[in-house]
Amino acid sequence: MDPDGVAKAFVDHYYTTFDTNRAALVGLYQEGSMLTFEGDKYMGAAAITQKLTSLPFAACKHQVTTVDCQPSGPAGGMLVFVSGALQVGEGEHPLKFSQMFHLMPVGPGNFYVQNDMFRLNYG
Amino acid sequence: MDPDGVAKAFVDHYYTTFDTNRAALVGLYQEGSMLTFEGDKYMGAAAITQKLTSLPFAACKHQVTTVDCQPSGPAGGMLVFVSGALQVGEGEHPLKFSQMFHLMPVGPGNFYVQNDMFRLNYG
Repeated sequence: MDPDGVAKAFVDHYYTTFDTNRAALVGLYQEGSMLTFEGDKYMGAAAITQKLTSLPFAACKHQVTTVDCQPSGPAGGMLVFVSGALQVGEGEHPLKFSQMFHLMPVGPGNFYVQNDMFRLNYG
Repeated sequence: MDPDGVAKAFVDHYYTTFDTNRAALVGLYQEGSMLTFEGDKYMGAAAITQKLTSLPFAACKHQVTTVDCQPSGPAGGMLVFVSGALQVGEGEHPLKFSQMFHLMPVGPGNFYVQNDMFRLNYG
């Protein structure tokens, strides 16, 4: 699969998991993974998942607007840059967000999230 | 300087250069550098600078809202994730943008831009 295809498949998988079974995101991170969420920093799959599962909304729905990707260097990593909208409750106004992921390979066609930075785009 | 300080110093330098002497951005990129600008891809300092200097506005002013950063891996790189607003003409409404940079070291405290992805956040 070409890099754009890999990036889109990852993004689909990530947000579908986030929206349907948030605790399962733990499998996408490792010990050294980093999340910066609205400026707050978390390290390691356990701390990151703890943060994501304790966000103050039970149900949510991500809608992706754009996905860009580039190789990050000789180690085979991939940078994925996403913009979209996040609906956190029935009838609520969607919140625009931007997010970047740095994926590192763990085998052919398999990646974990080494870096994750998320920001809401306040309008 | 701590990583957040380095990231903020880079961001200040980048947008000040962009807003005052755009052609001088060439010095921040190398042969293998990549830019994805609103989904269009450019590679190498010359092609990237050609794109940035041919954008359809002469004067502009970036205003930075948030700067996040994380180390990208063992090679000493740094990921910088920016949100802000861009004013492209006198009296025009500022356009919200998000941008990410992957900086790689070229010496102590010195970096070049290996990866650059830019998106306007349409409201």
